[in-house]
Amino acid sequence: MDKKQTDGAHEVPARNLPVPDTVSPQMQAVIARPLNPDHNVVPETTEQWKARVGAEAEKTAATLPALCKQLGVSVEPTTLNGVGAFTVTPDVIPPANLDRLLMHLHGGTRVRYPGLSGTREAILMAGFAGFKVISIDYRMPPDFLFPAALDDAVTAYREILKRAAPESIGIFGTSAGGSLTYTTLLRAKQEQLAMPGAIATGTPTVDLSKTGDSLFTNAFVDNAIGTQDGFIRATALLYADGRDLKDPMLSPIYGDVQGFPPTILTSGTRDLYLSNTVRMHRKLRAAGVEAVLQMWEGQSHTQYMFDPSAPETREYHDEIQRFFDIHLK
Amino acid sequence: MDKKQTDGAHEVPARNLPVPDTVSPQMQAVIARPLNPDHNVVPETTEQWKARVGAEAEKTAATLPALCKQLGVSVEPTTLNGVGAFTVTPDVIPPANLDRLLMHLHGGTRVRYPGLSGTREAILMAGFAGFKVISIDYRMPPDFLFPAALDDAVTAYREILKRAAPESIGIFGTSAGGSLTYTTLLRAKQEQLAMPGAIATGTPTVDLSKTGDSLFTNAFVDNAIGTQDGFIRATALLYADGRDLKDPMLSPIYGDVQGFPPTILTSGTRDLYLSNTVRMHRKLRAAGVEAVLQMWEGQSHTQYMFDPSAPETREYHDEIQRFFDIHLK
Repeated sequence: MDKKQTDGAHEVPARNLPVPDTVSPQMQAVIARPLNPDHNVVPETTEQWKARVGAEAEKTAATLPALCKQLGVSVEPTTLNGVGAFTVTPDVIPPANLDRLLMHLHGGTRVRYPGLSGTREAILMAGFAGFKVISIDYRMPPDFLFPAALDDAVTAYREILKRAAPESIGIFGTSAGGSLTYTTLLRAKQEQLAMPGAIATGTPTVDLSKTGDSLFTNAFVDNAIGTQDGFIRATALLYADGRDLKDPMLSPIYGDVQGFPPTILTSGTRDLYLSNTVRMHRKLRAAGVEAVLQMWEGQSHTQYMFDPSAPETREYHDEIQRFFDIHLK
Repeated sequence: MDKKQTDGAHEVPARNLPVPDTVSPQMQAVIARPLNPDHNVVPETTEQWKARVGAEAEKTAATLPALCKQLGVSVEPTTLNGVGAFTVTPDVIPPANLDRLLMHLHGGTRVRYPGLSGTREAILMAGFAGFKVISIDYRMPPDFLFPAALDDAVTAYREILKRAAPESIGIFGTSAGGSLTYTTLLRAKQEQLAMPGAIATGTPTVDLSKTGDSLFTNAFVDNAIGTQDGFIRATALLYADGRDLKDPMLSPIYGDVQGFPPTILTSGTRDLYLSNTVRMHRKLRAAGVEAVLQMWEGQSHTQYMFDPSAPETREYHDEIQRFFDIHLK
């Protein structure tokens, strides 16, 4: 027996993974996309970081006017006690949602999607689920390292608490935004702020250390991000600024989630962060939190919001809408 | 571009999967086990089927007296209108469960665990969750092909309906037993029987055709069963007796689940049947059924009940107990 056998590791042969026929044609197209070759390209200077982030932000922002028009949503810049944000308002708000307010923390590995480009997920939520959303344009590296983003999120939450009853507020975010949702609540608890009524976190990157089984099982199975090494690891190290990656304010899977509000978590079967999501769900359940898990066939990281025309995208938002409708006052 | 690139399939390199440190030591030992080399050995004669099934049944049955003693459970044979079964009773039944009754459909790829050996999961449920359980010893191949097992399950359910109010009855099962739980309800609907109060299906093999993304992504990642080819495929073909594998009474993912009772589904991140579970969860949700999904870090097919001493095993049963407690009258 060699080392690999005695330590219980399993050898998995190389495989060719077909596109599943158990998802919609739109989602098949998403799953069929080649892995972004930039997943392994790491910027080395501040200028390189800014160039990469800037180009992507510009490209994303350019798609948003059409998305707003299609979904019947308007976006206005605002500030919350000095923190940049956008108010994202659907043309039609159902009566039940008139006194409800969602706070959005965008994703993008803690460095991407500054400014308007960060509002895409908020636009989808406003349009599909009929909520007014305030999307926080928190400060990010390379100019602002930890804890700038968290400081901004908590400052924004304090302001939002003045605009709606806590139990009428929901917070949501995907990937880094899902993780920041949890760290915002950890900090809110420390500062004895009221908890919101409910939260929704999609494939939250709650562990910045290389921990969690799906980082291995779904490496290169996930065609959205491929692997936690390379670019993603570089963003974590940049953001953490020398801190222990298992610090609960960086990796909330190591925090105390007692008293957290009802939570819905989302992942996909090919998601590199499947284990992050599953571990957080179990942690919440073990702490007695009402936590609901939903999982999407064949999807990699964050693909439930790639194509607004996919039935899975609508179904995802229907589930979030129902969850908030049940749990928000 | 070669065919593989143009059709959207993804090449995944060979990998060495370490045992995750995000699970208990007991579960690490389960995950570290080598794949059963018999996964690819297919019996060719009735005698070979019986020899293989018999040897495994004997081995499993031999472990049950100690398990019963450890968990404080007794097992008695019974019959339900001619269908063999076992009454599995915990020494202590909490007052809330005195009028509740669980029906158990054991797993084992539709051919394994006849007689007493099929009661292991029922013993765990009785012991950990404090319910009285009737475990059905349904007829199986090679002697009895489809629809014998389903006939027996429905006959047993009719009898159980005479012993408790429908809304106080729960049905549960793992793998083939989870799938049989759904087909039993499909048939019960056809026969206009009352639905039970709730059901719990663990990694249900709701699709006997080779459909579902995790059959590819988790092939040989799952160390409990490895692949759907070989032995497992042979059991499906044997059971189906020439029928279309997508017949809803064989593969309930293709059935009409409207009106099904509240359902909790369980899988693991390495589970070969992860997609079966996820697809069924989505199907139930789309039909308006109250369906809850739970997922276990690093576990392959059915490993949530491998080691009674693992904290994950207790936690799994705690979740099922809570779910039944909420939904059963």
